[in-house]
Amino acid sequence: MVGGSSSVLRSSMSSFLLPTKLPLGNRITLLPVSNTASSRATHFIKSEMSLCVGTHLIPHPNKVERGGEDAFFVSSFSGGVIAVADGVSGWAERNVDPALFSRELIANASSMVDDTEVNYDPQVLLGKAHAATSSIGSATVIVAMMERNGILKIANVGDCGLRLIRKGQIMFSTCPQEHYFDCPYQLSSETSGQTFLDAMVSSVKLEEGDIVVMGSDGLFDNVFDREIVSTIGSNRDVTEAAKALARLARDHSMDSSFDSPYSSEARTKGNDVPDWKKMLGMKLTGGKLDDITVVVGEVVNLTESSWV
Amino acid sequence: MVGGSSSVLRSSMSSFLLPTKLPLGNRITLLPVSNTASSRATHFIKSEMSLCVGTHLIPHPNKVERGGEDAFFVSSFSGGVIAVADGVSGWAERNVDPALFSRELIANASSMVDDTEVNYDPQVLLGKAHAATSSIGSATVIVAMMERNGILKIANVGDCGLRLIRKGQIMFSTCPQEHYFDCPYQLSSETSGQTFLDAMVSSVKLEEGDIVVMGSDGLFDNVFDREIVSTIGSNRDVTEAAKALARLARDHSMDSSFDSPYSSEARTKGNDVPDWKKMLGMKLTGGKLDDITVVVGEVVNLTESSWV
Repeated sequence: MVGGSSSVLRSSMSSFLLPTKLPLGNRITLLPVSNTASSRATHFIKSEMSLCVGTHLIPHPNKVERGGEDAFFVSSFSGGVIAVADGVSGWAERNVDPALFSRELIANASSMVDDTEVNYDPQVLLGKAHAATSSIGSATVIVAMMERNGILKIANVGDCGLRLIRKGQIMFSTCPQEHYFDCPYQLSSETSGQTFLDAMVSSVKLEEGDIVVMGSDGLFDNVFDREIVSTIGSNRDVTEAAKALARLARDHSMDSSFDSPYSSEARTKGNDVPDWKKMLGMKLTGGKLDDITVVVGEVVNLTESSWV
Repeated sequence: MVGGSSSVLRSSMSSFLLPTKLPLGNRITLLPVSNTASSRATHFIKSEMSLCVGTHLIPHPNKVERGGEDAFFVSSFSGGVIAVADGVSGWAERNVDPALFSRELIANASSMVDDTEVNYDPQVLLGKAHAATSSIGSATVIVAMMERNGILKIANVGDCGLRLIRKGQIMFSTCPQEHYFDCPYQLSSETSGQTFLDAMVSSVKLEEGDIVVMGSDGLFDNVFDREIVSTIGSNRDVTEAAKALARLARDHSMDSSFDSPYSSEARTKGNDVPDWKKMLGMKLTGGKLDDITVVVGEVVNLTESSWV
C-alpha cells in the first residue's frame, strides 16, 4: 500500500503527509522536528516499524467555509502518532465556535508528543493537551502512538474510532463511549466533562502490512466495517484509501434511504419512526451529516524500506 | 459484584472458583500452587488489582454425556489468568474426539502460566502450550492474563471472544478471526493450522469494577453485546452472571425464530434462505447449537479488599 502521494512517516518535516484536500480554515499542526539526522539513524538501526499515513477531511456541507469542527494531526515521532478530535457541535447554540476547542486540543497534543513526561503514553498526552487548552468547548478525541517495535497504544474519549485491518478482516476495533445515544464522552472546558482518566486505553501489536483506519464518528456512523475492509482492499495507496473512505462516508451521509450504522443504532436505541409508519413497513434510515475525518496508516518495516 | 459463591482469585487452591455446574467429563485444570503464604503477602503489598471470577459451561445438547468440546481454566497467577478453548467439531468426521485437543491445550496452558519463559505474555503461553499438545485435532483459543497493575494482556486465535464492560457499556471487544464464514483461525495438530504467531495480541487497562466477559463462540453467536451488558447489569455476583449468560445463550441457541448474531452474520455473508422465501418476507433466523462457555471476571482492588 506504499506509493503514490503517501510517504513513510519519519523525523523530517518533508516527510509529513499533508491531507490531499485541506479544507479552508482547517488547521493541521505539524510536530516540530526535534530529532537530528544522526539520532534518526540511530533509531533506524534500533527499531523497525513505522506508519505510512494518508488523510482526508470532508467538512459538514453547512460548515465547508469554516472547515468544519474536526481536527487531526499526524506526527513522525517514534513509529508515528495519529490523532483525531471532533468538536461537539452543540456549543454553537451557546455562540461558541465548536471548532476552537478541538483545534486547540489537537495543536497542543501535536506539540507535546515528544514531551518526556508523556513518555509514549497517549493517555498522558491527552491529559497534558487538555490541561493546556484554554478555549471554551468540548471534543471527542482519539490518539494512537506507535512505538518502533510495532506496539500501538491508543487512548480514546468518546466516539472517534480506530480499526485494524489484517489480511482482509477487522482484527481490532475500539468501542465508542457515550452517556446516552448521540451524547459521547468528551473532553471539555467545563468540569462536568470527562478527563484523560476516563479515556479507554488499549494497545495492540501491529505487523507489517497491517492497515490502521482512524476517524471521527462522521466515518463510522456512515460506513460499516465491512465497507471499510472492502474499500481498503481496493485502494492500495493510503491517501487514496483515506479519500475513498471519506467520500463513501460523505455519499452515505447524504443518502436518506441508506440504512447506515447510525440509523441502525438509532433504531436499536428506540429512536425509530412512529408506530403507524412501522406498520407500513417503514423504518428510520439515512446517513448522518457530519464532518468526516479519515486517517489511514499502513505499517511498514523500515529495515526493508528503500529509504534511510 | 463480589459476593455469593464467587471469590477473589489468589494464590491458594481454596480460593479457586469452581464452575457452579461442571458437566460430566469436562475437565477444569487448576494451576498448582507455587507461591507460599509469605510470597503472597509480598505481592499483596506490591500490587493492587485482581480478578474475581465466575464460570459456567453448558455443553451442546447432543454432547452432554461427554461434557462437550469446550475447555477452560482460571488461575490466580499474578492478577488472574482466564482462558477458553473450543475444539473444532469437524474432527468428529475423522473419528477424532474434538474435545481431546482443546482439553490438552488448556491443561498445558494452565500448567505453564508461571513459566519464566512465558513472562506474563499470553501469546508466548499459547505457543508453548500448543507445542506441548500431542493430541490430534484443533481448537480456537483465547487467553487473558491480568497483571496486578490492571493491565490485561490478551492473545486470541479464532472466534472465542472477550468483552470489557465499564459503567454499563462495552468499552473493549476482541474481533473474531476467520478464514471464511464458520471457519475460524485455529491452533491445530496439523501444519496447515495457525500458530501463536497468528494470534491477535492486544491489551487493555482495567479499572476497579470493570467486568470482563470471556466466552466460546457459543456465547457470542447467540447473545448480542447489548444483552451481555444488560445481563451483567442485573446479576451482581460473577457466578450468577456467568450462569445467566450461559443460559441465555443456551435458550437462544434452541430458538429457531431468534434473530441471533449468528443468523445475522450468516445473512450478511450470503447464507440466507432461498430467494422465493425472501420474497415472502422470510429470512434466515435461529441461534446456533453449540457448547457454551462463559467466564465472568470482576476487577477488584486488593488494597480495599477485606481479606489478606
